[in-house]
Amino acid sequence: MLAEIITIGDEILIGQIVDTNSAWMATELNKIGIRVKQISSISDDREHILKALGEAAGRANIVFITGGLGPTQDDITKKTLAEYFGVGLVENTQALNNVKQIFEKYNRPLLEVNRLQAYVPANCEIILNHNGTAPGMWFSHEGVIYVSMPGVPFEMVYMMEGEVLPKLKSTLKLPVIIHKTLLTVGEGESFLAERIADIENDLPPDIKLAYLPKPGMVRLRLSAFGDDESVLQPKVDGFANRIIERIGNVFVVDQDIAIEKAILDKMAAKGLTLSVAESCTGGYLSHLFTQHAGSSAVFLGGGITYSNQLKESILGVKHETLDQFGAVSEETVTEMVEGALKNFKSDFAVAITGIAGPDGGTADKPVGTVWVAVAGGQKLLIKKFTFGNKRRQNIERSAVMALSMLNTLLT
Amino acid sequence: MLAEIITIGDEILIGQIVDTNSAWMATELNKIGIRVKQISSISDDREHILKALGEAAGRANIVFITGGLGPTQDDITKKTLAEYFGVGLVENTQALNNVKQIFEKYNRPLLEVNRLQAYVPANCEIILNHNGTAPGMWFSHEGVIYVSMPGVPFEMVYMMEGEVLPKLKSTLKLPVIIHKTLLTVGEGESFLAERIADIENDLPPDIKLAYLPKPGMVRLRLSAFGDDESVLQPKVDGFANRIIERIGNVFVVDQDIAIEKAILDKMAAKGLTLSVAESCTGGYLSHLFTQHAGSSAVFLGGGITYSNQLKESILGVKHETLDQFGAVSEETVTEMVEGALKNFKSDFAVAITGIAGPDGGTADKPVGTVWVAVAGGQKLLIKKFTFGNKRRQNIERSAVMALSMLNTLLT
Repeated sequence: MLAEIITIGDEILIGQIVDTNSAWMATELNKIGIRVKQISSISDDREHILKALGEAAGRANIVFITGGLGPTQDDITKKTLAEYFGVGLVENTQALNNVKQIFEKYNRPLLEVNRLQAYVPANCEIILNHNGTAPGMWFSHEGVIYVSMPGVPFEMVYMMEGEVLPKLKSTLKLPVIIHKTLLTVGEGESFLAERIADIENDLPPDIKLAYLPKPGMVRLRLSAFGDDESVLQPKVDGFANRIIERIGNVFVVDQDIAIEKAILDKMAAKGLTLSVAESCTGGYLSHLFTQHAGSSAVFLGGGITYSNQLKESILGVKHETLDQFGAVSEETVTEMVEGALKNFKSDFAVAITGIAGPDGGTADKPVGTVWVAVAGGQKLLIKKFTFGNKRRQNIERSAVMALSMLNTLLT
Repeated sequence: MLAEIITIGDEILIGQIVDTNSAWMATELNKIGIRVKQISSISDDREHILKALGEAAGRANIVFITGGLGPTQDDITKKTLAEYFGVGLVENTQALNNVKQIFEKYNRPLLEVNRLQAYVPANCEIILNHNGTAPGMWFSHEGVIYVSMPGVPFEMVYMMEGEVLPKLKSTLKLPVIIHKTLLTVGEGESFLAERIADIENDLPPDIKLAYLPKPGMVRLRLSAFGDDESVLQPKVDGFANRIIERIGNVFVVDQDIAIEKAILDKMAAKGLTLSVAESCTGGYLSHLFTQHAGSSAVFLGGGITYSNQLKESILGVKHETLDQFGAVSEETVTEMVEGALKNFKSDFAVAITGIAGPDGGTADKPVGTVWVAVAGGQKLLIKKFTFGNKRRQNIERSAVMALSMLNTLLT
């Protein structure tokens, strides 16, 4: 089963935004056995849209269209779809009620331009948008399915998860695909590949192994394709267990979840609490934890101690320590993590201090120098890292390494 | 002058990587007056590549191709380009020397497969790759320019900056494109459109206005196309100023930057400092600030006071206040922001407390209830918001609204 994705709008074409929607959609489609043949970004241009729709329909069974559904003049996706299908636009009651409800909820008057959001091509089925006024649309035309959704990422994601993916699964005869993801942290792709080369060689043709690297982490994804889940599942589980046994020291969890979520689950099960003392990561680590529902059962909070003064007042780092060794030092990170344990009264704590860059480095401590300490259960683990000179990468890598160390301490 | 970008390879189509190359290329091309008409991601498939090349050449003056230049069997870009142009592959001395040098530098033996990297279609000009073994290639064929480059981001960037962009500028007569972006916050797309409808109607055909919405924010982008910058710039500025005057209350900055960066710049210019007291946003607001280089000149840090205990110990919120009014209340957020100002000794402070969800709501305080307070310069601004029940959205919207209020307080 083949799909194509067409994104409509100038934002991607002028480089103002990076197209993260398509990557997310492609991942989710692959999971249910739909391959993406082409992803195209085109402008809000009638002729171009018509041509792209025709080309995509010639290659694929399903065409996803995102973007161009706003209420303003530059958004022409709906009327161009109507032209493509040779139908008119009609007001949809369901969609109109949704628009009205949203405006009532926010106590704002409904303008004529907002009412237009409820007009859709006559041949579509509505996909309700619980997060915005633009409805999604499902078309079935000459053997091809077309799904049009807003380009706003969270609106698209909720529509896909809530309605589109389930509907595709129930409408189409899709093969059975089973994925099992093993999250590893702290070892590179090629080293992992070398360690499990013999297991990989044993894989039968209907099971594939993919290496999905992110900074500091690699996900190993086993995917099995077939008709019978009861046959595939034990085969996949068997190979997963062989791999886990082999790479136990870098293995985190056998689910496709984020490492911080795996840690939160582990700590919640044991009734443990956590606090943080973040300097160079500036809140990013806390954000990773707190984006997950239920994190408050484990995560108490902590200090974003960007300035030295706050390292002293919030964490109790000694003035002399900062003076003598500097903010980015083993001594400071030790006092930070101990201060967090003591002041925030948590079972475990993480402290990070470093030079994220791009400026602020010295010969001794170049940009990318980061100290991480994790403590709890009478144990203390401290490491120094030397990353590169890209600020955001340094922030991300510091957080990932801190999570990796915390996972080690908990295991 | 129109360009298209074709990326070749499966990584993007299975969602393994996000296509950041195209956004970067599009930005750089726009700066020199080349508009990107379409961006297509396709697989390493001979027929598909040939078809995509033909389609792109039918629409654009320049076709950029990235990816598929590796030494392994699945990389077929070069031989497919040779087929497309009807030429053979020849060994290029310059490219071979480059490969040899790289292998000498790393002291590795040159394998036959590596030598193949120096074979290129006979009709191309080489673009030397200083960061890898795969040469870039420049073709001029039937009035269309084709540029093929590796997909590895830093190899591509280096080639574009060092050779491709300068060569395009010297080879082509390029038009002038001017963009001006106005960042607004706190008003929806359709309301903005209505407020400036008459200005939008006055726009001449060579200036376009686009609405680029994100949660809580809308960017208005004016784009002008022509030959003479000295004519276009004042025209664009004139319309920008009319819009700014009209929507002054929601206008933040006339640059294409994030709102928190605009605030950091504003505060840095005045020598002001900032601290935060985050509860439900859990570090996200701090992360927004600290992802920007130079934020430490303004941002001192603050407390992630997820638990009530930390609201008391770090911020000095009174136990009775929490008992009587709850953590999500006007009284608590007031003590939080005052505690931040006092304990963290900053000129301005932001406090946020709310119920991010999906659980934890009550009849009185449903999920999505958020209190935000900003204070500084003897002023205090407090607002209650009622967002929806999506955790990540609530976190994002809370931060954006806090930034919007801080911007108001600073203006």
